[in-house]
Amino acid sequence: MKKIGIGIIGTGFMGTSHALAYRAAGGIFSGEVAPELISVADVDRAAAEKAYHRFGFRRYTDDWQALINDPEVDVVSITTPNKFHLEQALAAIKAGKHVHCEKPIAPNSEDAKLMTEAAEAKGVITQVGFNYLKNPLIKLAKEMIEGGELGEIVSFRGIHAEDFMGSPHTPWSWRLDPKGGAGAIADLGSHIIAMARYLLGPIVGLNADLETVIKERPVALGASELRKVEVDDIARLTVEFARGCKGNIEANWVATGRKMQLGFEIYGTLGGLHFTQERFNELNLYRSEGNGGHHGFQKIEAGPEHLPYGAFCPAPGHQLGFNDLKTIEMAEFLRAVGNNQASGPDFREAWEIQKIIDATLVSSKEKRWVTL
Amino acid sequence: MKKIGIGIIGTGFMGTSHALAYRAAGGIFSGEVAPELISVADVDRAAAEKAYHRFGFRRYTDDWQALINDPEVDVVSITTPNKFHLEQALAAIKAGKHVHCEKPIAPNSEDAKLMTEAAEAKGVITQVGFNYLKNPLIKLAKEMIEGGELGEIVSFRGIHAEDFMGSPHTPWSWRLDPKGGAGAIADLGSHIIAMARYLLGPIVGLNADLETVIKERPVALGASELRKVEVDDIARLTVEFARGCKGNIEANWVATGRKMQLGFEIYGTLGGLHFTQERFNELNLYRSEGNGGHHGFQKIEAGPEHLPYGAFCPAPGHQLGFNDLKTIEMAEFLRAVGNNQASGPDFREAWEIQKIIDATLVSSKEKRWVTL
Amino acid sequence: MKKIGIGIIGTGFMGTSHALAYRAAGGIFSGEVAPELISVADVDRAAAEKAYHRFGFRRYTDDWQALINDPEVDVVSITTPNKFHLEQALAAIKAGKHVHCEKPIAPNSEDAKLMTEAAEAKGVITQVGFNYLKNPLIKLAKEMIEGGELGEIVSFRGIHAEDFMGSPHTPWSWRLDPKGGAGAIADLGSHIIAMARYLLGPIVGLNADLETVIKERPVALGASELRKVEVDDIARLTVEFARGCKGNIEANWVATGRKMQLGFEIYGTLGGLHFTQERFNELNLYRSEGNGGHHGFQKIEAGPEHLPYGAFCPAPGHQLGFNDLKTIEMAEFLRAVGNNQASGPDFREAWEIQKIIDATLVSSKEKRWVTL
Amino acid sequence: MKKIGIGIIGTGFMGTSHALAYRAAGGIFSGEVAPELISVADVDRAAAEKAYHRFGFRRYTDDWQALINDPEVDVVSITTPNKFHLEQALAAIKAGKHVHCEKPIAPNSEDAKLMTEAAEAKGVITQVGFNYLKNPLIKLAKEMIEGGELGEIVSFRGIHAEDFMGSPHTPWSWRLDPKGGAGAIADLGSHIIAMARYLLGPIVGLNADLETVIKERPVALGASELRKVEVDDIARLTVEFARGCKGNIEANWVATGRKMQLGFEIYGTLGGLHFTQERFNELNLYRSEGNGGHHGFQKIEAGPEHLPYGAFCPAPGHQLGFNDLKTIEMAEFLRAVGNNQASGPDFREAWEIQKIIDATLVSSKEKRWVTL
Repeated sequence: MKKIGIGIIGTGFMGTSHALAYRAAGGIFSGEVAPELISVADVDRAAAEKAYHRFGFRRYTDDWQALINDPEVDVVSITTPNKFHLEQALAAIKAGKHVHCEKPIAPNSEDAKLMTEAAEAKGVITQVGFNYLKNPLIKLAKEMIEGGELGEIVSFRGIHAEDFMGSPHTPWSWRLDPKGGAGAIADLGSHIIAMARYLLGPIVGLNADLETVIKERPVALGASELRKVEVDDIARLTVEFARGCKGNIEANWVATGRKMQLGFEIYGTLGGLHFTQERFNELNLYRSEGNGGHHGFQKIEAGPEHLPYGAFCPAPGHQLGFNDLKTIEMAEFLRAVGNNQASGPDFREAWEIQKIIDATLVSSKEKRWVTL
Repeated sequence: MKKIGIGIIGTGFMGTSHALAYRAAGGIFSGEVAPELISVADVDRAAAEKAYHRFGFRRYTDDWQALINDPEVDVVSITTPNKFHLEQALAAIKAGKHVHCEKPIAPNSEDAKLMTEAAEAKGVITQVGFNYLKNPLIKLAKEMIEGGELGEIVSFRGIHAEDFMGSPHTPWSWRLDPKGGAGAIADLGSHIIAMARYLLGPIVGLNADLETVIKERPVALGASELRKVEVDDIARLTVEFARGCKGNIEANWVATGRKMQLGFEIYGTLGGLHFTQERFNELNLYRSEGNGGHHGFQKIEAGPEHLPYGAFCPAPGHQLGFNDLKTIEMAEFLRAVGNNQASGPDFREAWEIQKIIDATLVSSKEKRWVTL
Repeated sequence: MKKIGIGIIGTGFMGTSHALAYRAAGGIFSGEVAPELISVADVDRAAAEKAYHRFGFRRYTDDWQALINDPEVDVVSITTPNKFHLEQALAAIKAGKHVHCEKPIAPNSEDAKLMTEAAEAKGVITQVGFNYLKNPLIKLAKEMIEGGELGEIVSFRGIHAEDFMGSPHTPWSWRLDPKGGAGAIADLGSHIIAMARYLLGPIVGLNADLETVIKERPVALGASELRKVEVDDIARLTVEFARGCKGNIEANWVATGRKMQLGFEIYGTLGGLHFTQERFNELNLYRSEGNGGHHGFQKIEAGPEHLPYGAFCPAPGHQLGFNDLKTIEMAEFLRAVGNNQASGPDFREAWEIQKIIDATLVSSKEKRWVTL
Repeated sequence: MKKIGIGIIGTGFMGTSHALAYRAAGGIFSGEVAPELISVADVDRAAAEKAYHRFGFRRYTDDWQALINDPEVDVVSITTPNKFHLEQALAAIKAGKHVHCEKPIAPNSEDAKLMTEAAEAKGVITQVGFNYLKNPLIKLAKEMIEGGELGEIVSFRGIHAEDFMGSPHTPWSWRLDPKGGAGAIADLGSHIIAMARYLLGPIVGLNADLETVIKERPVALGASELRKVEVDDIARLTVEFARGCKGNIEANWVATGRKMQLGFEIYGTLGGLHFTQERFNELNLYRSEGNGGHHGFQKIEAGPEHLPYGAFCPAPGHQLGFNDLKTIEMAEFLRAVGNNQASGPDFREAWEIQKIIDATLVSSKEKRWVTL
């Protein structure tokens, strides 16, 4: 099996997460993927050096272009803030590197379009970091839906709510920089939109309301100087799927008390599913057929029947963690690269998601339904 | 304490529920209320007779006007389908009777206006059957919000989802008769709208999408003949409260697997609350102050501290049932009648709720925000 | 249908609960039972008078013997502390009255034996207040077990834990009076033992440890004078069932935070069940047959399929409350009286339960297994 | 930082788990630990070779003594069946290697004693695989208890129930070989006993009942030939802690439906805690002080405040998985080795646990309390 050289741009939450995931993937999915950590880049050279030592890269740099040009680097992971994705991705693609980019793919769909078209023209493999789709139980949910276990789907309810921006004392930060795109709808909403599409297919129309709840924030923790917030804290969508059903979606980063309320309820004529990432090793299934007095939501716990759980642990009930989802994600990407096959969600899929995000801004501003 | 004579029009789910609740209220809240079951009316005389025997009314009739005219009847409970509410309520008001009417108050806000204005002109006490508000834990939630425990409220999410219309084989019925008003938004949505208003105050604008999922239904169980469905199965709303925050609301009677998913999440700058009627003896509170490592949603179980739980049982954890909520409701109404005080939610409140329901139809049809 | 005259001795938690339940039963199960509240007795004449007014008895007395002798009283409910049960029950039986007695039946099995033999000799109907057995979902659990849905039963775990005696500041009270029998094992343990027997049949051996955790308590709230506690706060049992399987049981009234943790887990070769009274409108069933990847505990919510839920409410998910369980209990008793049939759990069953409680004291004192 | 050479004996569930954990520890806790995978041994040479390739060991062998003698190996992980632990551990200790041994440490406490005394005499660092103790929330629970947040502890309830041996069709295996020690009490019970001791300290007495539920099993999957089972399927214990309180413990591997019900409830005079490994990123805390109407179990979700969660992920709610617990375990061991400090739980602690397991066999056989 050919080794695949990895370069990671960025060393924050996601840069670290990618490094750990590549490292783990080589052991968990050994024989299937063989990543080698080649180079790590950060504009903060000290951060790059620290990551180099921590994860065992061969080298580090403060020049991401150098990382891209590195002949040993086959794959580039872009984990920088959204506003840098376009330039870095285009450069990597130009250099013929396969690209994994964190979500959302870009501040807007124009950038996403450029990235997608460049990648497809060049023929490189791409993937975008919608890690929650990699949960074995989400794959099970998709199989159930596609297998008709729920009958015809009639309704979707999707939420991604957290509270990390809930306090008015939480300062202004790069996540609030409009150059990076929208707020909660991009940061969290992209995840639940990705999940909605993964499970139910394309969204063809929407009506959205985006709201900035906390209008000004301190420029830094404890600062008295305030800076205006221009992006949304909460987005509320009604969406229509191409398959015919509708749903609603909420993205909310001021949901005090919620740490990871990424979830959905899906109803069909024969059954229902509900799930929350708060307990992501459980999937709840209801089937309306059979003995009425025995009906009820069935709490399915993740186990080795749910691929690739068994690669992590041969016994049920032991549970995957967040980093394991990221490991599955990276392994799938590396496998796609190794086999030169399409991976998912790729840039094109992320562009579709970005179009939806862009449409929410139009819809909210113009207070009307938008057709995609 | 003066006895209050009760007349009930209708003997279905709610007619039965009212009769049980009045009967129970006399024991649970003895000394405070003293209802006497005088008369029961149903167009189906046999049903009226059966209820007369079952609950110990003094008489029965198939003529609801006779019941209203009965000099021993002080209070009239209207539990018939919505399309009959106006006529019956106006007649009862005209006769100077206090009126409890099941929800939603009417098929539309014009009827609700007539009913409200007639009742207020006559000076009778009114109440409408939003029984879920009578839960001691919902009162606790309201106290928490009003006491500032959650800080400034920034977001509301409300749902009332059930599945009793979920199967395409479920036949057409009076609930689907457009003469009775809207569908799920009226039948279920009125409950969660009532709760939203109870907890957070007036709604001043909304954007709604109403959807008929199952377009035709058998005219009767097992019939091959189909009848067109003209009312909504699912309603999805974005709403704006007068207090400044926004929220979303879903009413859904095709939510396969959900039997009583009436609930909400409310987020403020200092805390959060979540609740579902599926476990209505529990209220979950999060407070962001204090020791970070100990934070978490606190599951408060109903007990005698939460009035009037103690009237039912002196020990916590024993739990109230649905009929107990109805008993509290009727006791509050009777107390209002006895003291000649305003009760709640009264016709005017129900009219406000009805205006919102009506606005959802306009919004959905015209695909635009509606200001209330 | 013949009316049945009711006399209740005692006006505390259970006296009130019985009065409410008889009142409600007449409406909920109208046509099947027709109780009439005749007389209420309490040594505290004012309390008796208050109950008389509250519930609409025809008369009241401070002389329980007079109540028993009352010719209109057909049925006597004994809700006094345990140490009075024997004398009152024997008197009622002697007078030919049917007897409902609160649990545990007596301070010891000698009393229970006398009560049982007297009742059987006289031919009166008896019942004892194990209200939690009356839950429709507990009946469903029994049907599942008896129908073989779990295969051969291999293990039982039963708990009844509350915290009402958890604080060392909670004063000495009649529940701690050894003349009334044991402590937590009698007060709470009797419930879970009753449930174990109801679901799995006779217990033939046990090994128990009874422990007094708080050795002294204030003689009254806030008093500095302390009184020695002689009864158990916690009982821990290993039990053996006649059917061959074993189990453990815990009774605990110092379980800080637990308000009503009465529950069980039952495992069989084909399935499992778990239940807690904390959410008593839910029963969780696991079946090991079928598609592995879909296995999971199924949360069955109470509904009209689960008799007699439908007598309270025709729609699922609305939920019964504690008082409703008591209403079912009283209705079953009255039906047994009306039909002159055996009821359950009757005095003989309660005697069997009491034998187990007595055996726990022997086992704990002598630190050995006891065969029943 | 000095690198530490790792040798692992065994390549099954735990051998794999160790390899993954060492690999991950180097990245997660980089700068603190620096493991190097040197050698892997398995009597099945092909399995050893496979592991060598999968995890990147430098060599492999079918001779565990060779692995122990390997000069580059500083630390030996023993993950073979229990009956091999003694010989392998003594050899490793003799060679001056630090030893991590899977749980339970040995088939009996005689072996454990030999292992402990040899290790202490030689001065090597030891640790035993009680991975569930490494959960940040379990550490939080311990801090709460030791900090007095629950007041004086009065009761413990501990369970480790799974269902992997629940079906009578599940064949005989090495776990049932009495040469390896007891059954469920050793395999699962050791975990919950370890947790009881970790949280509440030494156990000084116990009364146990061990039961073989399924008396014969097929010699292989689907075989008609049966082999007698000599070890326990279920163990039920009453235990007494040196601190004065008592508790009960159940170990059960025939608990159909339960995949990982390792949990406890702990009650004190001021509070309560409950936890289950089924949702091991949540800890539930109740405090009885303060406003009565707001009391309730608080669901604390794991986050970066709970060390070392933050090494895995900087954001709360993302959740650790089972493998992450194992990573923490190995990192702690490596840190102890690196600093030449005592680690925990070490061989002595595991010996104490083993004494308890041995005592359960005596107690069950002789049907009496055993003092430790």
